[in-house]
Amino acid sequence: MEARSAEAGTGPAATPPPDGVAPVAVCSRYHEAVELVGRRWSGAILFSLIGGPRYFSDVAAAVPGVSDRLLSQRLRELEAEGLVERAVHPGPPARVSYRLGESGEALVPALRALYDWAQDWRED
Amino acid sequence: MEARSAEAGTGPAATPPPDGVAPVAVCSRYHEAVELVGRRWSGAILFSLIGGPRYFSDVAAAVPGVSDRLLSQRLRELEAEGLVERAVHPGPPARVSYRLGESGEALVPALRALYDWAQDWRED
Repeated sequence: MEARSAEAGTGPAATPPPDGVAPVAVCSRYHEAVELVGRRWSGAILFSLIGGPRYFSDVAAAVPGVSDRLLSQRLRELEAEGLVERAVHPGPPARVSYRLGESGEALVPALRALYDWAQDWRED
Repeated sequence: MEARSAEAGTGPAATPPPDGVAPVAVCSRYHEAVELVGRRWSGAILFSLIGGPRYFSDVAAAVPGVSDRLLSQRLRELEAEGLVERAVHPGPPARVSYRLGESGEALVPALRALYDWAQDWRED
């Protein structure tokens, strides 16, 4: 605690917050949205669809480390949430593809902003 | 499968993806970043700090449903990742506050884009 206190004595981080400011609750829509997009694999799956529709196998190849089972599950969740649309192309062999739905397309600017931030601030 | 096939026969979702397009792997920096921000509570905690430094108790009040234990854990993680800075203000009583660090501030446009999307596309 002593070391922490000494450390806190320098720099702008030490400026105390104002007192008596009522905290505004974080918007629940935003809260749920950020955790939906940030759920394991979901953000990567959505990003892989930015360029247009993709077959399941191509989404799988674009998202390293995801199993087919988990990828199917996430795609179903994203479809249920309206972010992703699924199409079956009659074969033979029949193939399944996915694309961003209207709300998924609307999310692209936010995904790109996260991508840009990651390039500037995160290391491999 | 029959119903799915019939349903897929209409609308732009039925346009098949081009064949022979090599899938580009999703960038690992982006992938880790979106899951860091989307980890349970983290996106809400970061949002609560957009307006400036806040005492721990005010962050807790702004993020409904989070326990003090989990809030402490997430704040430590975000501090370790460099997104959040911690300061101790000598009392008595000593108080702890948090603020966005440089990389946390740089993330604000992405958080706002997610917020805007949630307002437009998500329901309570």
